[in-house]
Amino acid sequence: MQEISLQGQGRPRIVIVGCGFGGLFAARALRRAPADVLVIDHNNFHLFQPLLYQVASAALAPADIALPIRTILRHQPNAAVMLGEVEQVNLAAQYVHAGDSRVPYDYLILAPGAVDNYFGHSEWHGFAPGMKEVEDATLIRSRMLLSFETAEIESDPTERAAHLAFIIVGGGPTGVELAGAIKELAVDVIARDFRVADTRRARVILVEAGPRLLPALHADSSERALKQLHDLGVEVLLGKPVTAIFEDGVEVGGERIRSYNVIWAAGVRASPLVSTLDAELGPGGRVKVAPDCSIPGYPNAFVIGDAAYLVDSATGQPVPGVSQGALQMGKYAARVIEEELVGNRASATRAHGFHYKDLGSMATVGKSRAVVEIGRLHFGGLLAWFAWMALHITVLIGFRNRIAVLTSWIYSYVFFRRGSRLITGLAPTKVKQPIAPATSTSQPPSP
Amino acid sequence: MQEISLQGQGRPRIVIVGCGFGGLFAARALRRAPADVLVIDHNNFHLFQPLLYQVASAALAPADIALPIRTILRHQPNAAVMLGEVEQVNLAAQYVHAGDSRVPYDYLILAPGAVDNYFGHSEWHGFAPGMKEVEDATLIRSRMLLSFETAEIESDPTERAAHLAFIIVGGGPTGVELAGAIKELAVDVIARDFRVADTRRARVILVEAGPRLLPALHADSSERALKQLHDLGVEVLLGKPVTAIFEDGVEVGGERIRSYNVIWAAGVRASPLVSTLDAELGPGGRVKVAPDCSIPGYPNAFVIGDAAYLVDSATGQPVPGVSQGALQMGKYAARVIEEELVGNRASATRAHGFHYKDLGSMATVGKSRAVVEIGRLHFGGLLAWFAWMALHITVLIGFRNRIAVLTSWIYSYVFFRRGSRLITGLAPTKVKQPIAPATSTSQPPSP
Repeated sequence: MQEISLQGQGRPRIVIVGCGFGGLFAARALRRAPADVLVIDHNNFHLFQPLLYQVASAALAPADIALPIRTILRHQPNAAVMLGEVEQVNLAAQYVHAGDSRVPYDYLILAPGAVDNYFGHSEWHGFAPGMKEVEDATLIRSRMLLSFETAEIESDPTERAAHLAFIIVGGGPTGVELAGAIKELAVDVIARDFRVADTRRARVILVEAGPRLLPALHADSSERALKQLHDLGVEVLLGKPVTAIFEDGVEVGGERIRSYNVIWAAGVRASPLVSTLDAELGPGGRVKVAPDCSIPGYPNAFVIGDAAYLVDSATGQPVPGVSQGALQMGKYAARVIEEELVGNRASATRAHGFHYKDLGSMATVGKSRAVVEIGRLHFGGLLAWFAWMALHITVLIGFRNRIAVLTSWIYSYVFFRRGSRLITGLAPTKVKQPIAPATSTSQPPSP
Repeated sequence: MQEISLQGQGRPRIVIVGCGFGGLFAARALRRAPADVLVIDHNNFHLFQPLLYQVASAALAPADIALPIRTILRHQPNAAVMLGEVEQVNLAAQYVHAGDSRVPYDYLILAPGAVDNYFGHSEWHGFAPGMKEVEDATLIRSRMLLSFETAEIESDPTERAAHLAFIIVGGGPTGVELAGAIKELAVDVIARDFRVADTRRARVILVEAGPRLLPALHADSSERALKQLHDLGVEVLLGKPVTAIFEDGVEVGGERIRSYNVIWAAGVRASPLVSTLDAELGPGGRVKVAPDCSIPGYPNAFVIGDAAYLVDSATGQPVPGVSQGALQMGKYAARVIEEELVGNRASATRAHGFHYKDLGSMATVGKSRAVVEIGRLHFGGLLAWFAWMALHITVLIGFRNRIAVLTSWIYSYVFFRRGSRLITGLAPTKVKQPIAPATSTSQPPSP
């Protein structure tokens, strides 16, 4: 165990674990704080997760939605960045374990995010990858594109159908958006690229255990999204829990559906890191935080984002595990800390507690289709789609990324193409044995 | 062994193995041929290898320089694409083995390309990856960026220096361009992103066993490139063969240089596939082809690109293993085949033999530096750099890719940034244990 050296400017240190929306906006909000801010993340980049499904569906390249954390914070002198995996936190002694060393803190903001929740069936992960990291998305992309390739050279119609079937488990925003994107890929983008397989007839099946899609939104939006998916040709199964997942399909409602492309979007739980804390856990393994987002008994340690469970006293509703929630909690924790460092007394913001501002929800269902809820205003269609695009472009961090994503979107809209159709990282052995395509000659090989 | 089904239009089949420049331009040149063209490649995309070094140096995303083969050939009705690895060729019986099945042909064009040549030291591959595939480039990129991260948190100065040292083995175009790009990355792009490590002082060492850089070009261009690299701050070792490579450095000229980033650009040999042929091999394991690029004794089987060895009877010089050579050989083989299929007699083009047209050579040495040779005209500097860019943008395939690359280049030129600085695909265990950065607090953890 290596105790770290402590040469420094003698200012208190704020350690932020995780650089998603919560951690990043906390770090930025602390730019004027009289403290040294240290951001620790296991990636060297901030990932814009709301668009990760577009990497999985070959519309965007990973670099389009990821920006190095160092680049984002380069002009913030009081911020340093560390690449590392935090495995343990000692709240009493006020340090975190990262790798082989301990990093002490005066204030701690834990924003480790969430991981896929297989509800006890971790063995499903191999058959049905989720979508949290860049590597997940590129794996899903490669498997999906490889399936089309295999379908093209597969002679057995049953096998071919299984390669042209895509099952998305989970009817939340990720599942809805991914289902629409994959169906569009198969119908509009790649259909003319294949000679044998009719990718237009690829089945995209969205399975939701609950009674409706987008449970976080209102019923009318669920209806709207359902209709839009039907218009696209996506099959939606509601009230049908998945009871088993195999390498070649799923079992849903007693029925078995064959597919070599099962994708998990059915839910998340808090990062395992928080289970090591001296703190009570709530639903989804989230830390039951105090109204000020701190860990009960440790006022200098905060948990934010979808690793935290907090029932907003104003609304009686738990803060949703969405980007907005993490972002607002991050700014809130930062304000509390800065007030205390500057004022040297209990922060008024802390006393007031965190309250979530619902700025609305939206989901897109493929090209020129989306649903939007802003307060009492609920609408869909083209206008909603433009609103969805405008918001995501605005929130997306990094000038270059905005340009890249926008041009990619315009390009796909105009030319029905997608720019990132690469099969990478798969061992060649994974390539299915090819057999003859339709254009094979009728002349037997001459002796 | 699965014999393929033979339903088809009764036209002769031309099988093209490999879709680099040679295979792709052969396939396109056959668009009007009365035959079925089948392109087999182990990737689903054509890779623009001349720019692969920009992926390795975080300037471009893989998708910027790769385009699905199906998309390129979608409007060519007589062309089909198959994803698969060709392991064996039976010239006598006229079929190729791909995976578990045999694909018969009437004409064969072998364009499998080349692989890195470690000259008998295959154990070096793990320490010094080469750059042939997308995965190679992203691995080099991730290792390089991870080294900067490690240097930032490394306390031991010797270790830190080893992480800030980059050794490129081989002074050909790839080595020269990579060395310049990495030095620019360290000096211009990321310097301000780090608080502790001074990336400006990163050593980039280019090691060439021969007496001069760019041996394929003329001496004055070698001098020019050498001066440009010196201006950039790249250290160049000439006439110094690498005698050993370890995990943490190389041995060159008896001296040991420590570095955790050794990259292999010292040479290639023909794809192992051609060693299975009933054909005589020349330098670099290349097939000694007849003047018409066919395999002696098998007039319907051609080998093109850097898998072929051919001394041009007009110049007495071997055709160089560059894009232009592959491209011209591909068009030539296609013309020979089409003439014979249409005319039903020996092709005049075949009788005339293949002759390489040297359209010139160029290499870039980082921003606004390059060397160009067109015939007797040799020049360098900004003009050469613009010529280099113009040519690569023009030859780059795919409208979208051209836009993406051009905008990335303009962006980096204006903002000194690079768009693809992602560390991906590395196991978290590979992340070195972090220790305290400079901004650590002087206050001991309060009890």
